Amino acid sequence: MRDKLLPDMATALREAGLADGMTISFHHHMRNGDHVLNAVLAEAAKQGVKNLTLLSSSIFPVHAPLIEHIKNGVVTELDTNYMSGPVAAAVSRGLLEKPVMFRSHGGRPRAIREGSRVIDIAFVAAPTVDPMGNISGSLGPAACGSLGYAVPDAECAKTVIAVTDNLIDTTLESVSIPHDRVTHVVKMDSIGDPKGIVSGSTSMTRDPVALAIARKAQAAIRASGLLKDGFNFQTGAGGASLATAQYLREDMIRMKLKGGFLLGGITKYLVDMLEEGLFDSIYDVQCFDLAAVESIRKNAAHHEISADTYASPRQKSCCVDFLDTVLLGASEIDVNFNVNVHTDSNGMIIGGSGGHNDAAAGAAMTIIVAPLIRARLPIVVDRCTTITTPGNTVDVLVTERGIAVNPARPDLADRFRDAKLDVYSIEELRAMALKIAGEPRKVEFTDRIVGTVEYRDGTIIDSLRAPA
Amino acid sequence: MRDKLLPDMATALREAGLADGMTISFHHHMRNGDHVLNAVLAEAAKQGVKNLTLLSSSIFPVHAPLIEHIKNGVVTELDTNYMSGPVAAAVSRGLLEKPVMFRSHGGRPRAIREGSRVIDIAFVAAPTVDPMGNISGSLGPAACGSLGYAVPDAECAKTVIAVTDNLIDTTLESVSIPHDRVTHVVKMDSIGDPKGIVSGSTSMTRDPVALAIARKAQAAIRASGLLKDGFNFQTGAGGASLATAQYLREDMIRMKLKGGFLLGGITKYLVDMLEEGLFDSIYDVQCFDLAAVESIRKNAAHHEISADTYASPRQKSCCVDFLDTVLLGASEIDVNFNVNVHTDSNGMIIGGSGGHNDAAAGAAMTIIVAPLIRARLPIVVDRCTTITTPGNTVDVLVTERGIAVNPARPDLADRFRDAKLDVYSIEELRAMALKIAGEPRKVEFTDRIVGTVEYRDGTIIDSLRAPA
Repeated sequence: MRDKLLPDMATALREAGLADGMTISFHHHMRNGDHVLNAVLAEAAKQGVKNLTLLSSSIFPVHAPLIEHIKNGVVTELDTNYMSGPVAAAVSRGLLEKPVMFRSHGGRPRAIREGSRVIDIAFVAAPTVDPMGNISGSLGPAACGSLGYAVPDAECAKTVIAVTDNLIDTTLESVSIPHDRVTHVVKMDSIGDPKGIVSGSTSMTRDPVALAIARKAQAAIRASGLLKDGFNFQTGAGGASLATAQYLREDMIRMKLKGGFLLGGITKYLVDMLEEGLFDSIYDVQCFDLAAVESIRKNAAHHEISADTYASPRQKSCCVDFLDTVLLGASEIDVNFNVNVHTDSNGMIIGGSGGHNDAAAGAAMTIIVAPLIRARLPIVVDRCTTITTPGNTVDVLVTERGIAVNPARPDLADRFRDAKLDVYSIEELRAMALKIAGEPRKVEFTDRIVGTVEYRDGTIIDSLRAPA
Repeated sequence: MRDKLLPDMATALREAGLADGMTISFHHHMRNGDHVLNAVLAEAAKQGVKNLTLLSSSIFPVHAPLIEHIKNGVVTELDTNYMSGPVAAAVSRGLLEKPVMFRSHGGRPRAIREGSRVIDIAFVAAPTVDPMGNISGSLGPAACGSLGYAVPDAECAKTVIAVTDNLIDTTLESVSIPHDRVTHVVKMDSIGDPKGIVSGSTSMTRDPVALAIARKAQAAIRASGLLKDGFNFQTGAGGASLATAQYLREDMIRMKLKGGFLLGGITKYLVDMLEEGLFDSIYDVQCFDLAAVESIRKNAAHHEISADTYASPRQKSCCVDFLDTVLLGASEIDVNFNVNVHTDSNGMIIGGSGGHNDAAAGAAMTIIVAPLIRARLPIVVDRCTTITTPGNTVDVLVTERGIAVNPARPDLADRFRDAKLDVYSIEELRAMALKIAGEPRKVEFTDRIVGTVEYRDGTIIDSLRAPA
């Protein structure tokens, strides 16, 4: 019997041989409730380690202490798919000497598997660990459901440390990551704050603009011809997206349709549709609320999948390839249908691709749902500040004022017009927005490159500069 | 939506680019009912392909057509963990120019993952396939349960072809190998004969020698101190092994014990113990009978595991590392406790390691159960004809006439003597056998090397010669 349990984080880092210049990895299922990344970096700093590369699938406001670790040279490189909060703001202003490498949720596992990112030590925030080192994401005080983003890290890292607050005596019945990927186990009082891990319950929006967008998105999906038996669907947790999902649900019940799978970050609304028999399966790389965590525990058709299976272009196929429709958001969309979800109207980092450009590339129809004007600024611009998702993978923009179809998809435009939807050219939507909101002040940028955007296949498609 | 389905095997081989000199892989869950390997080689021969390396986790009597393919130069190299039947006999007599590479069930995935065996095309005998290419081993006319040995092949091969006789319309609820490992899907009328895949039901032995061995093995396990809560156990499907498992079951019920996991090739007897609550889990790399196939479908605690998770020394841990006791067979065991399960008393190939040397290396106590004399020949010999499992990983020999303990384990010998078990030196057991059966005729060998035995870690530990 091998005993993998180490007494504390200090011992774990020493046993794993943490040293200057190493690459260490984290996953983001604990989201804004995560205690693990901060604990590891605090101990690394204490041990005087410098020059670490942090490969974290996302960075949240809770990770603000990272700013000090960057200032002190403990961390000198970031590689992530999404960042928000104080770290994102500080990086926007030039905190890091090297640009942040922004990947997508599918590009990250591609980079790890192909070896362009070699992980020395992967840290897995592990809600429950059994005596062999098997990990479950669905049980324990910090249960978060799927651990899909941690799978490639655990399979490829030289050393894997499972950090847990729930060691059990018996072998686990539901295993997210098997023991053969786990080198050491270490206990913390709490790996995550449940309130920050899951949103509790996502409530349906009452925002009339979001509901108007959702009605138009519903009509577009219906008109597309894609809504039929076997329909595979992904949506995010934004107001307009979830409202569209609810309207689709009504359509599917009325039309007596049975969909194939639901994909992406999973919420109660999607679980309800599975349990009502409207879809065969859920493929879950991340649970967004407690209903999803509960469902992954109890529903056999609610499958935990890895980031590879979800979205990696290096695999023989990935789930996004089979999507009929995906609903995605935008902070900007330009007249060439390029989409920005990296930066806001001030040029500050507010997110990143996550699965945005993966799902857009895979889906038969990619719909961007967004208000025509947000915070008094037009969503449609001449050229995106940052390109997250190339326009050739985006088919439709749905706003509360009308729909624009990518000229590369005349088939969709025809169907929409036949269904009497209010289709405009994207330039017309742009003009409409400008007429209402006026031309916004141009953001000025310095020459300082603070981020690099890697497309899912490894191509560098953009870079981010610090705003002036 | 990507359509992976190809019309027939001929098209599949062409699409996959099958060419001279390639390495193609197969797994053995269809065992002696397998139709896939023969079908692929027949088509390859028809297409005029030569010089293939066959990486098949096992080769059975049903694969006799392979002999012709070797004679015709279609296949020129074999890499396997086990072979029996006509191919084994022909190889023993020098059919192949190159020696067969014999690996273990843990050494094979190690070789694949480390890249010392690069697979061009992996063929997965797939009992059920859904529209995305997800594979289930547990459903369909050729259901075989676990597909554990196919997992490393499917993950590492350049091209993966799922061969199925059961395509379904809806997404699979239970997935053995996810679609992201599958390049093409091709249909055959039947991928396997259920009668050859599973034994139907394994019936308990009434052989008095086997039962006597089992009673002594039971006593040894009880005396070892290992039989307590959390006991992790592996046994094969041989008569003495299964009888020992039944006796242990009675001990566990009487002692009110709850074991940890059951491991290895799974039979009804192990399933019964899971369902009776005597063990927490089954880790299943291969189902041996229909009860096991049924159980893996319905019991959440009956886990399908990969060959890596089962036994690969390249992983951070593998299941065999956590075994308290394993029961294994032998065709010979020598006075240094080396064990042979490759060749028979005529020097002919009759098997191979399978998981033998993996489980022996991992278990806290490795027990060889064997009759002292088999077919009038002593089991204990001065030197094994072939070394499958090194003596330093073998702790105990249990025969119907007495028990021998490896001198490296005085702790066990003491415990056995304290429990009044009839412990002898292995030399004493050897003398006892010789006295009854006499010194057997020595097998003569030619200089022709027909096989190489690789230990699980990659070390070459023996070679096999053709008998004279």
